[in-house]
Amino acid sequence: MTFHSMWAELLPIGRSSASGGYRRFAWTGPDAECRAWFKEQADARGLAYEVDRNGNQWAWLGDPAEGDAVVTGSHLDSVPDGGAFDGPLGVVSSFAALDELRARGAGFRRPFGIVNFGDEEGARFGLACVGSRLAAGQLTREQAHRLTDGDGVTLPRAMEAAGYDPDALGPDPERLGRIGAFVELHVEQGRALDLSGDAVGVADAIWPHGRWRFDFRGEANHAGTTRLADRRDPMLPYAAAVLAARGEAERAGAVATFGKVAVEPGGVNAVPSLVRGWLDSRAADQARLDTVVAGIEKTAREQAKAHGVGLDVVRESFTPVVEFDHALRDELARILGRDSGLSVPVLGTGAGHDAGILAGSIPTAMLFVRNPTGVSHSPAEFAAEDDCLAGVRALADVLEGLVGR
Amino acid sequence: MTFHSMWAELLPIGRSSASGGYRRFAWTGPDAECRAWFKEQADARGLAYEVDRNGNQWAWLGDPAEGDAVVTGSHLDSVPDGGAFDGPLGVVSSFAALDELRARGAGFRRPFGIVNFGDEEGARFGLACVGSRLAAGQLTREQAHRLTDGDGVTLPRAMEAAGYDPDALGPDPERLGRIGAFVELHVEQGRALDLSGDAVGVADAIWPHGRWRFDFRGEANHAGTTRLADRRDPMLPYAAAVLAARGEAERAGAVATFGKVAVEPGGVNAVPSLVRGWLDSRAADQARLDTVVAGIEKTAREQAKAHGVGLDVVRESFTPVVEFDHALRDELARILGRDSGLSVPVLGTGAGHDAGILAGSIPTAMLFVRNPTGVSHSPAEFAAEDDCLAGVRALADVLEGLVGR
Repeated sequence: MTFHSMWAELLPIGRSSASGGYRRFAWTGPDAECRAWFKEQADARGLAYEVDRNGNQWAWLGDPAEGDAVVTGSHLDSVPDGGAFDGPLGVVSSFAALDELRARGAGFRRPFGIVNFGDEEGARFGLACVGSRLAAGQLTREQAHRLTDGDGVTLPRAMEAAGYDPDALGPDPERLGRIGAFVELHVEQGRALDLSGDAVGVADAIWPHGRWRFDFRGEANHAGTTRLADRRDPMLPYAAAVLAARGEAERAGAVATFGKVAVEPGGVNAVPSLVRGWLDSRAADQARLDTVVAGIEKTAREQAKAHGVGLDVVRESFTPVVEFDHALRDELARILGRDSGLSVPVLGTGAGHDAGILAGSIPTAMLFVRNPTGVSHSPAEFAAEDDCLAGVRALADVLEGLVGR
Repeated sequence: MTFHSMWAELLPIGRSSASGGYRRFAWTGPDAECRAWFKEQADARGLAYEVDRNGNQWAWLGDPAEGDAVVTGSHLDSVPDGGAFDGPLGVVSSFAALDELRARGAGFRRPFGIVNFGDEEGARFGLACVGSRLAAGQLTREQAHRLTDGDGVTLPRAMEAAGYDPDALGPDPERLGRIGAFVELHVEQGRALDLSGDAVGVADAIWPHGRWRFDFRGEANHAGTTRLADRRDPMLPYAAAVLAARGEAERAGAVATFGKVAVEPGGVNAVPSLVRGWLDSRAADQARLDTVVAGIEKTAREQAKAHGVGLDVVRESFTPVVEFDHALRDELARILGRDSGLSVPVLGTGAGHDAGILAGSIPTAMLFVRNPTGVSHSPAEFAAEDDCLAGVRALADVLEGLVGR
């Protein structure tokens, strides 16, 4: 089964004909179809298939109990109306890389595994990387059991309905302890490789990343009759905060985004009582991120005060910088540099990944495949097939180097 | 039954214990309770009760078929989490004014009616003044049948469920033709009377009023990895439009409000593909309103262009200036001025009312009762009982002058 034919099999699953984007949310029908596809791929290659206590899927060549295993993989779920590449490219490339290694007659001196982590995007329950967080002990069963989707369905009920046992959720240190190296291949979600002219790169670090909720509280009022001077309109300082986020991020070479906003009462003819905006911000280091967020908050507070509006800022989540294992990163760069005769770009990323979660427990590395527009989390997400095949070869090179050691 | 006891009977109906505001939406349970209360008041006073083809309630003293009737009234439904006064103050004051006229032994030379118009606020189906619009022929049955609430229930299904016949909806020229004068008393929704120091005022005109939908179309993207320079973020020109609305309205002495916004995909970690904001703007005259909206649109277009974002502006509704009947307005001011020995303030208003709809068909006037904070469409909406009683006396004076003519 070629890369191309595996890709073609996945392509129709969970695709919205309205948006052209994917809606493969954890523990739904499209997710189950993706997972069935994973098992078929494992079976077709004679790999030992298993599902761990947290619903992550594994396919093994050799006995993982021997330890120091080499594992590759990614995820198959999507954000709402996401693209085809974010996640699936890593899983399809993993199977394709194994096929390549077998074709090369590579020797496997270490157990080798391919993994599909469950619920990476967090599109349904609001928390990303649930499968890897649970395995790494960064999310407890109790916390996971409280996760609820937009329809009020809890994670345990959703898992049960999909045929899994939510009471089994929990840390999996023994399983992770048997892994000597984890490599995740992923489509780049920016344009660094496009700008450097490379098909493949190696990840250096995941930027520190936080989400802040800005609650602007004013006073609901009639939009037709309330004099401007008598208003306490929270939409005005919210708008100022949106513009400040852009300015602060520009100055710091960071990113800052207000992508979600909720308004109460939300009537066309009502001055709002509440505008709640969510800020997502990331920067290359902690100091820069602190500067950006402090600058945005300063403008928001000044403008809230000027309009008689209250403001609460709550940090809803925070992930410090994740540095990938330096030895493994350098080994990947060396393997790839040796084969291509060129130095391989090493880059930071603003996106979270299962690899970032696992980096706290095991030596972890990431490979990125060029994204010519940088667009991601959108139906327009794209990578050229030639670049994808270059990614498969790079992953095969890296895995050959690791399993043959 | 005193003003105070009527008021106390209505007070608990449809009140949210969470917000303290009212949720009396058309054709729901709380609406039915308010309507039952209206019928009780009519019956208790020996008035002839009827419901017209559009679901508006009427209570008659004398035979309206004689023509040249004097009618007063307002509405009993509310906006989401609205106040107790907007609507009910006019209906309760109508019954209290009739009681006052009877106590005075006033002569009724013309038929006299009290009306409760259905679905004035449009909170459920998105269109205001449905009952009066249908009666005045400003809304057709076909248009009304297409109205749908947030749960997908159509207006005809909602009316049917409440026991009314939606096939009967339509214009009612004969009924309106029998009315010689309509007077609506309403709590002021601004602070003009508070600033002038008067308990009661007479309406001059309803400001021209429009709603515009601004669709900013950018490109969905990953908020963590997309460089600022590669973004087409529609939240940025939306924020600029919000701030421009305030500035333009200030310069023109008008009002302009963005009170509702919808974002797609609306993820915390996604640059939006679409930000849709609704602008409500009103001004004392058409030229000023045009200037305000043109100024906002200019800024929105400039900023949209600067960020690679598309913009469509759609005028969703528009109501030209409504001048109340000059003769009736002057007669009201004369009657009230004569009794108080003072000149009565005559004021414009930015709010729409059933009286504004009917003004195109019959001589119509409005009385306003002082609102010390100007707050309306909010649980904090308030009028002092002394001012409410002054409103009842003023309405009784006006009605006595009209029915005795």
